[in-house]
Amino acid sequence: MMKKVRLGIIGLGAQGGAYASFITEGKVNNMVIGAICDIDPAKKAMAQEKYPDVPFYDNYIDMLESGDVDGIVTCVPHYLHPEMGIEALKRDVHALLEKPAGVYTKQVKELNDFAATKPELTFGIMFNQRTNELYRKVKEIIDNGEIGAIRRTNWIITTWWRPQGYYDQSAWRATWEGEGGGVLVNQAPHQLDLLQWICGMPKKVYSNVKYGYQRNIAVEDEVTTLLDYGNGATGVFITCTHDIIGTDRFEILGDKGKIVVDDSKKVTIKRLHKAESEMSDSMSMQDVMRIFMGGGATEIFAEEVIEFESVWGGQHSAVLENFAANILDGTPLLAPGSDGIHGVALANAIHLSSWLGKEVELPIDEDLYFAELNKKIEEEKSSAILIK
Amino acid sequence: MMKKVRLGIIGLGAQGGAYASFITEGKVNNMVIGAICDIDPAKKAMAQEKYPDVPFYDNYIDMLESGDVDGIVTCVPHYLHPEMGIEALKRDVHALLEKPAGVYTKQVKELNDFAATKPELTFGIMFNQRTNELYRKVKEIIDNGEIGAIRRTNWIITTWWRPQGYYDQSAWRATWEGEGGGVLVNQAPHQLDLLQWICGMPKKVYSNVKYGYQRNIAVEDEVTTLLDYGNGATGVFITCTHDIIGTDRFEILGDKGKIVVDDSKKVTIKRLHKAESEMSDSMSMQDVMRIFMGGGATEIFAEEVIEFESVWGGQHSAVLENFAANILDGTPLLAPGSDGIHGVALANAIHLSSWLGKEVELPIDEDLYFAELNKKIEEEKSSAILIK
Repeated sequence: MMKKVRLGIIGLGAQGGAYASFITEGKVNNMVIGAICDIDPAKKAMAQEKYPDVPFYDNYIDMLESGDVDGIVTCVPHYLHPEMGIEALKRDVHALLEKPAGVYTKQVKELNDFAATKPELTFGIMFNQRTNELYRKVKEIIDNGEIGAIRRTNWIITTWWRPQGYYDQSAWRATWEGEGGGVLVNQAPHQLDLLQWICGMPKKVYSNVKYGYQRNIAVEDEVTTLLDYGNGATGVFITCTHDIIGTDRFEILGDKGKIVVDDSKKVTIKRLHKAESEMSDSMSMQDVMRIFMGGGATEIFAEEVIEFESVWGGQHSAVLENFAANILDGTPLLAPGSDGIHGVALANAIHLSSWLGKEVELPIDEDLYFAELNKKIEEEKSSAILIK
Repeated sequence: MMKKVRLGIIGLGAQGGAYASFITEGKVNNMVIGAICDIDPAKKAMAQEKYPDVPFYDNYIDMLESGDVDGIVTCVPHYLHPEMGIEALKRDVHALLEKPAGVYTKQVKELNDFAATKPELTFGIMFNQRTNELYRKVKEIIDNGEIGAIRRTNWIITTWWRPQGYYDQSAWRATWEGEGGGVLVNQAPHQLDLLQWICGMPKKVYSNVKYGYQRNIAVEDEVTTLLDYGNGATGVFITCTHDIIGTDRFEILGDKGKIVVDDSKKVTIKRLHKAESEMSDSMSMQDVMRIFMGGGATEIFAEEVIEFESVWGGQHSAVLENFAANILDGTPLLAPGSDGIHGVALANAIHLSSWLGKEVELPIDEDLYFAELNKKIEEEKSSAILIK
């Protein structure tokens, strides 16, 4: 019989509870629940009723030292991810972090630096969207150079609608102290990661961020960001939580073609037969008008449309299984934990640009970011926003 | 018989030549060609062959004073539009300006101020896209409040592909001295006008403008702009001349719905049954997921899709006819000349933001813009770019 990885689930909220179910339902072949940890007595009662044979801890350090778990997953507030990752790796327990890797890069860098001293351990991050066949295909096309060097990226991802009731569920939600941000740290980390995974990290960022624009919250509910990749290429990233008929449209223009992803379901790829610069040098506007007006666009490009089924549930199980496989037999990780820093760096840069009212370069000044974040936390504590 | 307006065409290039043809072919009912003016002897020869009965002038002031024309249209380099408009109105000749109204607002303001002293004269501008039924419909929906107050606008209009050969046609093309800019003053003025006509003027602008990015030109061939409307609403405007499979997608999000215009042909309107803020207050995420996953989106919004035929040729004739009708019987102008300043103000703000590397407020400092523009002209004169 195949050896199974014993997972310690830290935090039995919505996410931790879902992972426990996936494992119990046999959706993760190479994994069992080794132990569960939560500081909430109500969760303890729930765990003991649902998983009577699984050891329960109310202190995660005790769980890490119990010998009951081979690895852990951190389904806890974002600020705690790096600390718990470090404590696990320190005790030779493999660590799978929930996204985001942390709230600020200073903290995530400590985690990455520590993880680098333990290369024999598995350190992963729950970027479940990286298992999405659609985005894997888009990345493959870009990496293969099929549309040439990137000139422009554009992602409008406003399908993260959240009603006021969502924010009012708990006092820590959508606060600087509790979450360290809004849509950037809670909903959009997947797209921030996919964007940089597929198109690379920008060198500069300018943003217009709206704090408490359409919701009664202290943190951001709308973000518009201009990216500069430093090599001439530019980009735009837009997200918000107040668009109930949200848009999800991702466009990448390259020297040799264009990719448009609609609704994370349909990919339209137009591959130019010749690089655009060659056409610029050899064709006239009349040539191009004749081609497009005459419906002869195939003269200059070939179009491929691929439709994908959406597979929400399976993505998280796939990351859990990949994490366990890496532990068991070295199967490459879909998302190495050290990759988590990029999305955090992007989110931090977007916040910082809006706080300073100017373009910022990446990597940003981490100490400045941390100081500004702490100012927000202090302002929040003394403001009326928390008096509900 | 109906009286016809005698139009003086200044500049018999591509545009002026097209207008002459439209009128001769009877596409403009209430207009005849009163005279033609051009400084180029080759154009004189062409005019005398094609239009032997039409008086020809090589000095537009002479034409204005000849008594041969009731109104003029300025198919000449952008810098000359305001001056010619003023000279015409000064002599009680009606003026139809080609777009853009000018290169810098300082100049356009002088024109508008002078025109305001001659309210009895007709002063129009060739915003032919304002005759486009599609955009008229979009404006009507917005003006009627059918999708509520605007929260976000987004126009990607990169269908302005121009090969290097286009720029190499004449020495003045795509130069600061000859045109005062690139895609913003030459190709995109229609969309800059439509955007502000439909959605209003922004209060602040931040831009990333690429000068000579994919073409060997001094001026801009790519523009990414972030708009701030000052009331919480934001926007993005993107245009370029190097995308041979260009995108034309205009999205407007409002409190009560969303409009998406694809390819200037198809309008998709989603009207929410209740304002989004009401839904935020009353609905849970579970409600929304149930509605969208169950395919019951009609519970929250009604979708209308309208497809339009594209009518390129007819638009310019319609503006000419409307200009004449305003002269003859006071029919309201589709595009009053004084409206031309808005698009110029937007283009100026976009340039200025990129030159200063920071967000700028509208109205911008006109003297600063003019000084910076003149710096570009001086740099251009002394640079190698002009040595071809």
